[in-house]
Parts: sequence; structure tokens; C-alpha cells
Amino acid sequence: MTESEGWPGLAGQLTDFGHVLPVRVYFEDTDFSGVVYHASYLRFLERGRSDFLRLIGVSHQALATSSVPMAFAVARLAIEFRKPARIDDVLKIESRVVDLGAATIRLAQTVRRDEAVLASAAVSVVLINSVGRPRRIPEEIAEKLRRRSKP
Amino acid sequence: MTESEGWPGLAGQLTDFGHVLPVRVYFEDTDFSGVVYHASYLRFLERGRSDFLRLIGVSHQALATSSVPMAFAVARLAIEFRKPARIDDVLKIESRVVDLGAATIRLAQTVRRDEAVLASAAVSVVLINSVGRPRRIPEEIAEKLRRRSKP
Amino acid sequence: MTESEGWPGLAGQLTDFGHVLPVRVYFEDTDFSGVVYHASYLRFLERGRSDFLRLIGVSHQALATSSVPMAFAVARLAIEFRKPARIDDVLKIESRVVDLGAATIRLAQTVRRDEAVLASAAVSVVLINSVGRPRRIPEEIAEKLRRRSKP
Amino acid sequence: MTESEGWPGLAGQLTDFGHVLPVRVYFEDTDFSGVVYHASYLRFLERGRSDFLRLIGVSHQALATSSVPMAFAVARLAIEFRKPARIDDVLKIESRVVDLGAATIRLAQTVRRDEAVLASAAVSVVLINSVGRPRRIPEEIAEKLRRRSKP
Repeated sequence: MTESEGWPGLAGQLTDFGHVLPVRVYFEDTDFSGVVYHASYLRFLERGRSDFLRLIGVSHQALATSSVPMAFAVARLAIEFRKPARIDDVLKIESRVVDLGAATIRLAQTVRRDEAVLASAAVSVVLINSVGRPRRIPEEIAEKLRRRSKP
Repeated sequence: MTESEGWPGLAGQLTDFGHVLPVRVYFEDTDFSGVVYHASYLRFLERGRSDFLRLIGVSHQALATSSVPMAFAVARLAIEFRKPARIDDVLKIESRVVDLGAATIRLAQTVRRDEAVLASAAVSVVLINSVGRPRRIPEEIAEKLRRRSKP
Repeated sequence: MTESEGWPGLAGQLTDFGHVLPVRVYFEDTDFSGVVYHASYLRFLERGRSDFLRLIGVSHQALATSSVPMAFAVARLAIEFRKPARIDDVLKIESRVVDLGAATIRLAQTVRRDEAVLASAAVSVVLINSVGRPRRIPEEIAEKLRRRSKP
Repeated sequence: MTESEGWPGLAGQLTDFGHVLPVRVYFEDTDFSGVVYHASYLRFLERGRSDFLRLIGVSHQALATSSVPMAFAVARLAIEFRKPARIDDVLKIESRVVDLGAATIRLAQTVRRDEAVLASAAVSVVLINSVGRPRRIPEEIAEKLRRRSKP
């Protein structure tokens, strides 16, 4: 992993409720209808979750190359698209943990432009080993997520 | 629109229940965890819906360039990921209409490899005009979709 | 790897000059300018190369899981974009081997709509091992590619 | 366009030679071979060009909705892939103008991790109108680009 020193804020910020990440809309995110392609929002949400984990000290690379290789995988996702995002927009991806199971993290995630909610999602993420079996989330990671969970 | 003459089956097939489309998994669809990236399934589902519409006579280009420009937009989507798909796999995207409103089509979509269900989704699609307002689905399109809806 | 039986033509066809693959343009491939996003062509070209290899008997999965894990990686690519492709188009991806080195395959690839050339590319692909070192292309693969190379 | 106030650095920085943008590698950018998918680099390069233009005062949205709608389109691109990038990496996308024609901008772009060059590209971008015809680059934009061109 390369240090992002010199680019403060690249991984967004931890907040009272969890984490927020700014995301710029580029050509690649849009489609011929003129607005952001619906599946692009899932990429934005994943960036938010990755950087949330990063800022509490968990990197995908470290998980993948640990003595017991692990990875977070999306198990379930529901998303509502309310308003379209457009080229050049700066979106805020907000992530909060709503429930923490043995192997599962349930998050509520929101895509905003200024204060307007463009999309909102409920996402279940499972920690799995190299053959896809759920694995207990290490207590140190769980503890850090719990501290960021809304009561 | 270019004719796909000479490539029968490129747009999949209408079936008793709706539509089925074969989709090959390429490099672009996978991620470093070794399996298909979760957001790629949304692209596959969208291909299935597009080709379902295509085979009942509706093209995105025709909608976009009609006297009243229209487009189908995803309003709501819930997806469950059950088993991973891998590079080189041939997946079947099955689409069926479960409900038809004035401006909204609700579909059930399934991603299979042979008989195994890898992912299943409930998707609501809305016909909108050029400023994003819902529009009544033209009766000829509705009629064709109704004929493909499971009772 | 799943059999594509029942979907003849899904992997395109071997031809006198090499290989041709039909590719449909979907929402995911376009951008807000109304036409196909420039990087989407690289995905189309990669599909063509993958299916060319597939039809001469080489699968990515087999390479990756062989006793000496290998993969084809793009080393160099030059592409010229001549005319835009649009939603709903059916494109033909033509691939021909122009030179075959110990570890390197050089291909000429063309994207057409009917007879019009939309994009043309020169691509160098290298066979690498799991730490990224070039590996000699197995003679049986080289032989099959040679038979498809234009004199 | 939404203001990115509160997220300084989101669009990278103008430099002596042109522009530099930090880009994080996420799941979406990688493929099953374990490293970044080759076409993802084109998306990164496009983000660099977009933010370069943004910081000298040109937005895609403003061009697209001006009295004579215009857009920048890639006409030609050559890229060499030297070393792989990996999940969690922070890459630097460096962009410099090497030549400025009436309707065409030629850029040299480099993808680095720390000081290592992972990929380098030569890209020709053309300003086109709504039917795809080249258009003279407005003098105020040309002047700003000229000031950022290496002698």
C-alpha cells in the first residue's frame, strides 16, 4: 500500500455517524441518457466502505495477504435512486454501521449532492475466507466499527 | 440501430416466463478477489432488460429520439448475492415482469450458472421524459409486456 | 468453466484472418456525450482476444490454475477512434495475429459497424507468470496462433 | 456543477508542467489476475485530463450546455504498461500539454506510484460539436493551456 501523505482527505473523513467520502463524477460514470449510470452508484458506495475501513486501520491488501486470507464481500444490497447525479458533480458518500454480526456488517449508505439525497442504500457485507466461507470479524476490527456505530 | 442479422441469439430469447440472455464473464467483470465484482451483476441485469425490450420491439435509441424523448431509468433495486461467478463462466440472465404500473415495470431477475442461482434481484424501472418526470408507458409496449407476464 | 452449449456463436467465430466477435452496445458502454465511452473499446477488444484464445482452446481459468499459473497481460496498446458507436449498435470485433514472439503476441484489432471501421488498434500481449515475469508461450498455443496468422 | 469547497485537492493541482491528480485504486479497478485492469488506466487518465481542464476553468457541463454545445473526445491514444498497480495503491496521474492545434490537444500522461512509472501514454483529444465535427478551441481556453505547456 502506498501512503497518501501529501493528499489529506483522499480517503474522506471519519465522522460522528461513521464516514464521509467526496466523489467526483467523471465521463466514465455517466451514460447516454445524460446522467450517472445506475450501477456507478454501487462503485461509489464501495469506495466509501473501503475508505471507512481504511481510516479505522483495515486495508484490503492486508486482509488478502494475512496468514488467513480474507476479503469483504457484498451479500445483499438494496438501493433507491431518487434524483440523478450529473457530470462534474461532487457527491458525498455517507456510510454508517447499523448492525454488526459475527461475520456480517450491515451499513446504511447515502449519496448526497449538497444536502439533497440522490440515492440511499442498505448493504450487508460479509467477511469471507479464500473459499468463500464466512469468517468471524477479528475483535479489533469489530471494536473499531462498534465505536463508529450509531446507538 | 444496426441489424444483428447473422448473429442469431445475440439478444437472447423470449421465453414462457419472459426473457433469457447468455452473458460471458470477461476480465473486465472480475476483481482482485478472484471472482466477479458485485456491481458487474447490475450491468448484466441491465443487458437482460435491454434485450428483453429489444425482442418485443423497443429500442433505447428509438425511445430517446422519438417526438417525446423517453428513457427507462432504474428507480429501485434489491439484489442478493448467493454464489460467486468466475472468469470464463457463461451466465444466464433471466428476466420476468412481475407487475406493470402506469409508468413502472417491476421485474424479477435471476443470474444462473447452469441451474445454480448465483444472484437474484427485484428491480423497478420507470419510464421518464427528458426532465426526469414519469411518463405513462405507451399501450403497445405495455400490451407486449403484459403478454410476457406470469399470471 | 461453464459450457456455452445451447448458445452457439457466443464466443464469436474463427475466420480466415483470425477471429470475429459480435458485441452489443448497452447503457454501461456509453457516456453523457451520447456515444460509446472511449475506454469501453478496450473492454470490447479484450473480449475479442479472450474469445479468440477460447476458440483455439485456451481459457484464462485454465492458465491461472495450471501447475505454473500464467496470465496474458497487455503490455502496449495504440488505438485510433474514427467514428462513434451508439447505444443498441451491434459491433464486430476483428482480431488478427500480426507477430508472435517467445512471450509476446502482437495483434491488429478492428471495431466495425457493418463495413465502417469505428476504431482500429495495435495491441501487444505478454504471457506472464504469477510474479509478472514474461514466460515462453507453450508451443501448442503458439502453433494454433501461427495457423491463424496472416502471412 | 457542485462546488467542491470543503474538499480542497479533490481535483488535484496545477503544477509547473501541467497537472497532477491522486487516484486511489479500489475493487472496481482490479481484475481476477490480482492487479489493476488495463482499461482502468484510461479511466484514470481521463480523470486527470478532466480535472486539469477544471482547474483552468473549463467544465464538461459548461461546454455541453453552451450556446454551441461542445465536448472533448479522444481521437488517438497510445499507452505502455510497465508495472502493475494494486488494490489500495495511491497513484499520481500527471498530465502535460505537448502540442496545441486548432481543434486538437496532444498530451503526455504518466501514471506513477511514488516515483515509479507504472504506465505512460500519449493522448490526442479533439474538441467536437454536437454532430462530431472538430471545432476551433476557444482562444481563452487555448491561452490557458498554452501557459501550462512545457516549452
